[in-house]
Amino acid sequence: MAGAVAEKSADKMTQAREISVSEFFEKNRHLLGYDNKIKALLIIVKEGVDNSLDATEEARILPEIYLKVEELEKEKYKIVIRDNGPGIIKAQIPKIFGTLLYGSKFHRLKQGRGQQGLGISCAVMYSQLTTGEPTEIISSTGDGRTHRYKLKIDVKKNEPIIIEESEEPSKKPWHGVQITFIVEGIYREHKQSVLEYVKQTAVANPFADLIFDSPTGRLSFKRGIEQLPKEPQEIQPHLEGVEVGVLSRMLHETAARSVSSFLSTEFTRIGKTTALEICEKAGIDPKISPRRATDEDVIKVVKAVKEVKLTKPPTDVLSPLGEELIEKGLKKELNPEFLAVISRPPAVYRGFPFQLEVGIAWGGSIAEPNFMRFANRVPLLYQQGDCAITKSIMGVDWKRYGIEVDKLPLGPVAIMVHICSVWVPFTSESKEAVASYPVIIKETKLALQEAARKLSLYLAGKRRAEYQAERMKIFERYAEETARALEELTGEKAEKIRAQIRKIVAQAKPEDIEGEADDAGGASEGGGGEE
Amino acid sequence: MAGAVAEKSADKMTQAREISVSEFFEKNRHLLGYDNKIKALLIIVKEGVDNSLDATEEARILPEIYLKVEELEKEKYKIVIRDNGPGIIKAQIPKIFGTLLYGSKFHRLKQGRGQQGLGISCAVMYSQLTTGEPTEIISSTGDGRTHRYKLKIDVKKNEPIIIEESEEPSKKPWHGVQITFIVEGIYREHKQSVLEYVKQTAVANPFADLIFDSPTGRLSFKRGIEQLPKEPQEIQPHLEGVEVGVLSRMLHETAARSVSSFLSTEFTRIGKTTALEICEKAGIDPKISPRRATDEDVIKVVKAVKEVKLTKPPTDVLSPLGEELIEKGLKKELNPEFLAVISRPPAVYRGFPFQLEVGIAWGGSIAEPNFMRFANRVPLLYQQGDCAITKSIMGVDWKRYGIEVDKLPLGPVAIMVHICSVWVPFTSESKEAVASYPVIIKETKLALQEAARKLSLYLAGKRRAEYQAERMKIFERYAEETARALEELTGEKAEKIRAQIRKIVAQAKPEDIEGEADDAGGASEGGGGEE
Repeated sequence: MAGAVAEKSADKMTQAREISVSEFFEKNRHLLGYDNKIKALLIIVKEGVDNSLDATEEARILPEIYLKVEELEKEKYKIVIRDNGPGIIKAQIPKIFGTLLYGSKFHRLKQGRGQQGLGISCAVMYSQLTTGEPTEIISSTGDGRTHRYKLKIDVKKNEPIIIEESEEPSKKPWHGVQITFIVEGIYREHKQSVLEYVKQTAVANPFADLIFDSPTGRLSFKRGIEQLPKEPQEIQPHLEGVEVGVLSRMLHETAARSVSSFLSTEFTRIGKTTALEICEKAGIDPKISPRRATDEDVIKVVKAVKEVKLTKPPTDVLSPLGEELIEKGLKKELNPEFLAVISRPPAVYRGFPFQLEVGIAWGGSIAEPNFMRFANRVPLLYQQGDCAITKSIMGVDWKRYGIEVDKLPLGPVAIMVHICSVWVPFTSESKEAVASYPVIIKETKLALQEAARKLSLYLAGKRRAEYQAERMKIFERYAEETARALEELTGEKAEKIRAQIRKIVAQAKPEDIEGEADDAGGASEGGGGEE
Repeated sequence: MAGAVAEKSADKMTQAREISVSEFFEKNRHLLGYDNKIKALLIIVKEGVDNSLDATEEARILPEIYLKVEELEKEKYKIVIRDNGPGIIKAQIPKIFGTLLYGSKFHRLKQGRGQQGLGISCAVMYSQLTTGEPTEIISSTGDGRTHRYKLKIDVKKNEPIIIEESEEPSKKPWHGVQITFIVEGIYREHKQSVLEYVKQTAVANPFADLIFDSPTGRLSFKRGIEQLPKEPQEIQPHLEGVEVGVLSRMLHETAARSVSSFLSTEFTRIGKTTALEICEKAGIDPKISPRRATDEDVIKVVKAVKEVKLTKPPTDVLSPLGEELIEKGLKKELNPEFLAVISRPPAVYRGFPFQLEVGIAWGGSIAEPNFMRFANRVPLLYQQGDCAITKSIMGVDWKRYGIEVDKLPLGPVAIMVHICSVWVPFTSESKEAVASYPVIIKETKLALQEAARKLSLYLAGKRRAEYQAERMKIFERYAEETARALEELTGEKAEKIRAQIRKIVAQAKPEDIEGEADDAGGASEGGGGEE
C-alpha cells in the first residue's frame, strides 16, 4: 500500500504550483465585493472616488469630482470618474491600474481611504472579466502634457497589457485623472447603492464638490466647507502591540547601530530613557547591534514592552471628522430633536493608532433606527452584521439608557460611527466591515456609552416633562371642580386653592410614582461598569 | 500651482511599489481569521486537520488523525497535527508550507476542503509572527525515508526559509505528515472553539478516526463508517455563467483547432450539436481558430450561451454528505422528536456546480435554536451573520410553516445546512462564511422550504393531536356529569351517552375552531410561491 500511496502523492504534488495574485482574486472576486451586479457598480465607483479624494486631499487640493454612470445596454454600464488631483506620472499609470497589490499606501502608516493597492486594479480586472473591455485612463500632472492609456491585465502574470497608449499636449493646462470603465452591472437606487454611497460620502467629505450624473439625472453636491481637513500625518509604528515577527524583521533592516537607538528611532514616542528601560527589563545589552539580536532577544523585548508604560501615540496624526462636522452632517440629514456627539482620544491596536467618533441622534425626522458606519471618511454599506461597529452597538446595554432594544436599539434613533486609523483592519478586501479586534470594540463601546448617557439624560428629562404635562392636563380637567368643592368646605377663595394645587402638581417628580423610577434613575449612573 | 502639484505627485508616486502576497496577509492577518487569540488556535487547527482530511480522502485512505493542543506558557501553545495520508514529496515541502498562494487545489475544479493554497502557509506565518518560532514538518511518502524540516517564511519575498533540514531512514515504514506549530493563542471550550470544530468535523466526517489531546484531556472520535465517501471528481468548467474574461483567456490557451471543438472539449456537458448551436446563435463561424476569435466574438458567444438550453453539470462530481448521514448525525447529536432532511439536485453558479443539503430537527433534546453550517464537510463557526446560509434561513417565511421567528426561527429547532461545490465562494480568506451569490441563496432557500414543509405538516399533526388530547381531558373532566345529566333528561344509559360524546370530541378538528385555523391550514399549502 505504501508504494501506491507514494505514487499517488507524487502525482498529486507535482500539480502544486504558484497562484498569481490576479488569478486568486479573479476566481475569488466576491472577496472584493463583486458578488452581484448591483454591488459591482457600487464597488467600482467607490474605488475610483475614494482614490480621487485621497489624491486631492494629499496634494492639498480642494476636490472637484465628476462621476457618471451611464447605461449602455441591459446590464452594461459606462462609469466615468474624473478628478482635479495631482495626476499620475506616465511611468506609473500601467502599473497602478494593471497590477494587483501595487501602490503607494501599503508600506506607510498614514490615514487614507485606500491602503491596499488592490481596489482600482481589481476594478480594471472586473471590467475585462465581465465585458472584455479595457479601462481608459487619461491623466496630466499639470506639465502641459496629457497621457492616455487603454489597459487590460494579464491575469496569469499579474501584469498590465497596454492596448493603446498616446501622449499629446494638453489643450489647456490641467491636472487630474479620468478613468472610464465599461462593466456589467445593474443600477438601483436602494439603500446600499451608488446613490447612497455618494450621499454619505458628501456628508463625510463636505470640503468636496461632487457631481453625479446618474441614469436618473444629475445630482450636485456643493462643498459646504472651503477648507480641507487637517492633513493626516505619516507615522512610525507604535511599540505597543508590535509582533515578534515584525520586530525581528525590522531589527534586521534598520540602519541603527544599537538596539536602544533602534527602539528610539524606528518607533513613535520612544525616547532614549524608555528604550534603555525596555532593554533593562528584557535583560539585553542596549549597545549590541540590532543584527546580532537573537530570536530569544526579540521575544524578551516584546515581553518587556508589556511591562513598560509607553507614551500613547501622537494624537495629531489622525484626521477625524470632528464633533462639529458630525453634528452639522447629522442635523442636516436627519433633523433630530436631540443629538449627542462623542470623539474618543486615540487608542492603539497592534501598534496602529485609531480613533472613534460617535453621533447618536434621536427623534425629529428620524422614523426608524438608522445605523451609519464610516472608516477613514468612507461610508460602509455592506456586511453590517459582521462589522466590529455593529457588534459594539449590540454590545451596549441600551435598556440601561432607557432605549428599547432588539439586538440593535429600537425607536427613532440614528447612530453614526466613524473609525479613523493609519491602518483600518477590514474583514475582507472589499473593505465593507471592520475586523473585531477586542480593543476596537472596547473603544467603540465606550464612545457609544458616553453618547448614550447624554441621550438617556435627555430622555429622562423629556419623560419628566411629559409626565408634568400629563399631570397639568389632568389638573386642568379637575382643578376647577376640586377648587370649588374645597372653597365650599374650607371657605378659602377658589382662586387661591387652584394656585396651591397647581404648585403641588408641578413639584411632583416621576420618581414618586412606582414603575417609572427604574427607567429614569438607572440611566444616569449606569454605563460605567460596562467595559 | 500646476508645477507644484506635479512635483508632489511625482514624489508620491515614486513611492508606489509592489506588495508581496505575504506582506499583504501579514498586515491583514484578520482576513484569514487571525483577529483574536482564541480564534487563532481554531484557524490553525482547522487548516491542518482540513488538509489532512483532504490528503487522506484523495489518496483513498481511511483517515486517522491525531491532534494535540498543549499549553506551553500563558497564551503560548504547541499544536501538533498528524495524519496517515500519502505524505508530501521532499521537494514540495518548503514551497507548500513556506509560500503563500501555492498549492495543488486552486487550478482545478474538484470538491475539497482546501482550495486556495493559502491556509497552511499563513499558519506558518502567524506562528513566526507571534512567537518567532519556525514550524516543524515531518513527512514520509511510505518509501522508507522520513524528511524533517523546520521552516519560516521570508515575508518580503514570499519564499520559504529553511532553518533545519534532515532526511533519515524511517524507523518503521509509514506515510503521512506531522506538523508542529508554536503559536500565541488562548484555548477556550466555548461555542466557537477548537473543541466545537473537532466535534462538528467528526459529525460531517464519520469515516475518520480522530484523537484530540486537548489541554483538558483526551477525546476520541472513533469512525462510525468503515468506508470513505464517494470520491469527488475533477471536472471542466460549465459554460453557464462563464465570464467574458475567462472565456477569452481559455480561447487563447486551448489546443483545440476550432471554436466549436473548443466549446465541446473544454467545457463539461457540451456536445458537438450544442457547440454548433451556440456558434450559430452567436453568428460566428464554428470552424475559425480559437486564437482568431476577437473580443466581440467572445461577447457574442457569452450572449448566445444564455439563449441555449444547456445540460446541467454532471451530478456525480460532487460528494454530498447524503440524507442518511445527515439523519444519523443529527439524531445522534440532538435526539430530536422530528427530523426532515432534504438534498437538492446540483445547480451552477458562475460555471461551478454546487449542491445544497439541509436538515431540520425539532423538539426532543433541542432546547434552543441551533444553526450549523458546513461547506465541503468543514464546519463554519464564525461570521454567521454574513453567510449566504444564514441569509437564506432569514429569507424563508417561517411563519408560513407554523414556526415562530425573530429574524431567525425560534423554538426547539436545529437547522443544519451543507453546501458542497467544486469551488465554494467564501466571503473571506478565513473561509468562515459563504458569499451571497443569488443562485446559492435561492437553492438554499428551496432546500429549507422543502424541509420546512415537512416540519409544518408534522407540527400541524402534532397541534391536532394536542388539541385532541386537550379536548379529551376536558371531556374526561365533565363527561361523567354531562352523561349523568343527559341520562336523567333522555333516559338513555349514561354509558352509551359517554361513548357518543367521546366520539364527537374525537372527530372535531382544530380547523373547526376559529383562531387555530390560520396556523395549521396555511402551512400545508404555503411555501410554493415563495421563490
